[in-house]
Amino acid sequence: MTQPSASREVVVPAAHGAAIEARAGDLVSVTDVEGTQIGDLVAFNLKDRTEWLDMARTRSTLYRIHLRLGDPLYSNHREPLFELVEDTVGVHDLLFPPCDPKRYAVTWNQPGHRNCLTNLTEALAKYGVSMWDVPQPLNLFQNTPVLPDGRLGMSESRSRAGDHVTFRALKDVVIGVSACPMDLTPANGWHITDLLLSVRMAPSA
Amino acid sequence: MTQPSASREVVVPAAHGAAIEARAGDLVSVTDVEGTQIGDLVAFNLKDRTEWLDMARTRSTLYRIHLRLGDPLYSNHREPLFELVEDTVGVHDLLFPPCDPKRYAVTWNQPGHRNCLTNLTEALAKYGVSMWDVPQPLNLFQNTPVLPDGRLGMSESRSRAGDHVTFRALKDVVIGVSACPMDLTPANGWHITDLLLSVRMAPSA
Repeated sequence: MTQPSASREVVVPAAHGAAIEARAGDLVSVTDVEGTQIGDLVAFNLKDRTEWLDMARTRSTLYRIHLRLGDPLYSNHREPLFELVEDTVGVHDLLFPPCDPKRYAVTWNQPGHRNCLTNLTEALAKYGVSMWDVPQPLNLFQNTPVLPDGRLGMSESRSRAGDHVTFRALKDVVIGVSACPMDLTPANGWHITDLLLSVRMAPSA
Repeated sequence: MTQPSASREVVVPAAHGAAIEARAGDLVSVTDVEGTQIGDLVAFNLKDRTEWLDMARTRSTLYRIHLRLGDPLYSNHREPLFELVEDTVGVHDLLFPPCDPKRYAVTWNQPGHRNCLTNLTEALAKYGVSMWDVPQPLNLFQNTPVLPDGRLGMSESRSRAGDHVTFRALKDVVIGVSACPMDLTPANGWHITDLLLSVRMAPSA
């Protein structure tokens, strides 16, 4: 008789953030519930708050700006923090910062607009993470390609309802995800919706 | 009679780091003394240590991964910290982290190799900047293009002896520069040399 996997999940409400803890070996999934919804994902080592998921070191260690199945994702300590084990979309962004209050206020004259930086700060506050500790996220389902001339495109997410990615955690981590509130570009398909963040124990061999 | 510009300069010794302060309005130059030498540049606001030069927000605000003359360079507060006013090379990198101890130890089995992260930490220690405060740098003269398939190239720097970039500081800042010690890839032309870091007052109108 196999022991049932312990599983936990939290809804990341549209335009808000949420956090979940995972232990080394756990499988962490982010699911796009309705489709075309970007999730900004950050993570910190629960045992050493100086270590976090680092997109710059992930890019430079992989020598790539895209992820492939089986890729390790690196921390600022240049150690693997996750492994990508499932990806039904294959189009994510490793280059953009979280959208932030100033971005909406200055670029779109929308002071007070919800934003990923505030969402992630709120979600991770109880872990001692303050606003300027929030690193550049992995922007799941975000379709912002580098164009041949070096410009960054801003296209609608390619994810559809039920699409998801799964990572194996390689250390004990807390993961923060923001359901990106950007409704002023095509990025989220002009419709901001929920994400589902779940953690389950890896099936025993 | 015009007043002579106050000017200060420091040598960034090959494979080491250095720092210099600049006031808002000052012109900051980094010169490649012998050629093909990368300089990893970071900067912090002297009056608010939570604000630093941020490559992710620079990329996303410009919607580009390259710099052009006249571009503002943004901080994590999404405010312009510098303006690019002179550039005799035009090929720089906005995507790589600094090389670090683990990178040399794990990838090239070279523990103890000099590295940009340690160089920048040493150069900025007296400003209260510790190792994990060092953000992703602007990698001056670094020729690591994004290839059409998303891989990152690693080519020799295109800068030649005397080539330089100049930024106008828009706030009071301290600037740290590391003369990148990477001698295990073609990046620095297999020859690690000095950089010159200088600050001068903008000429009065």
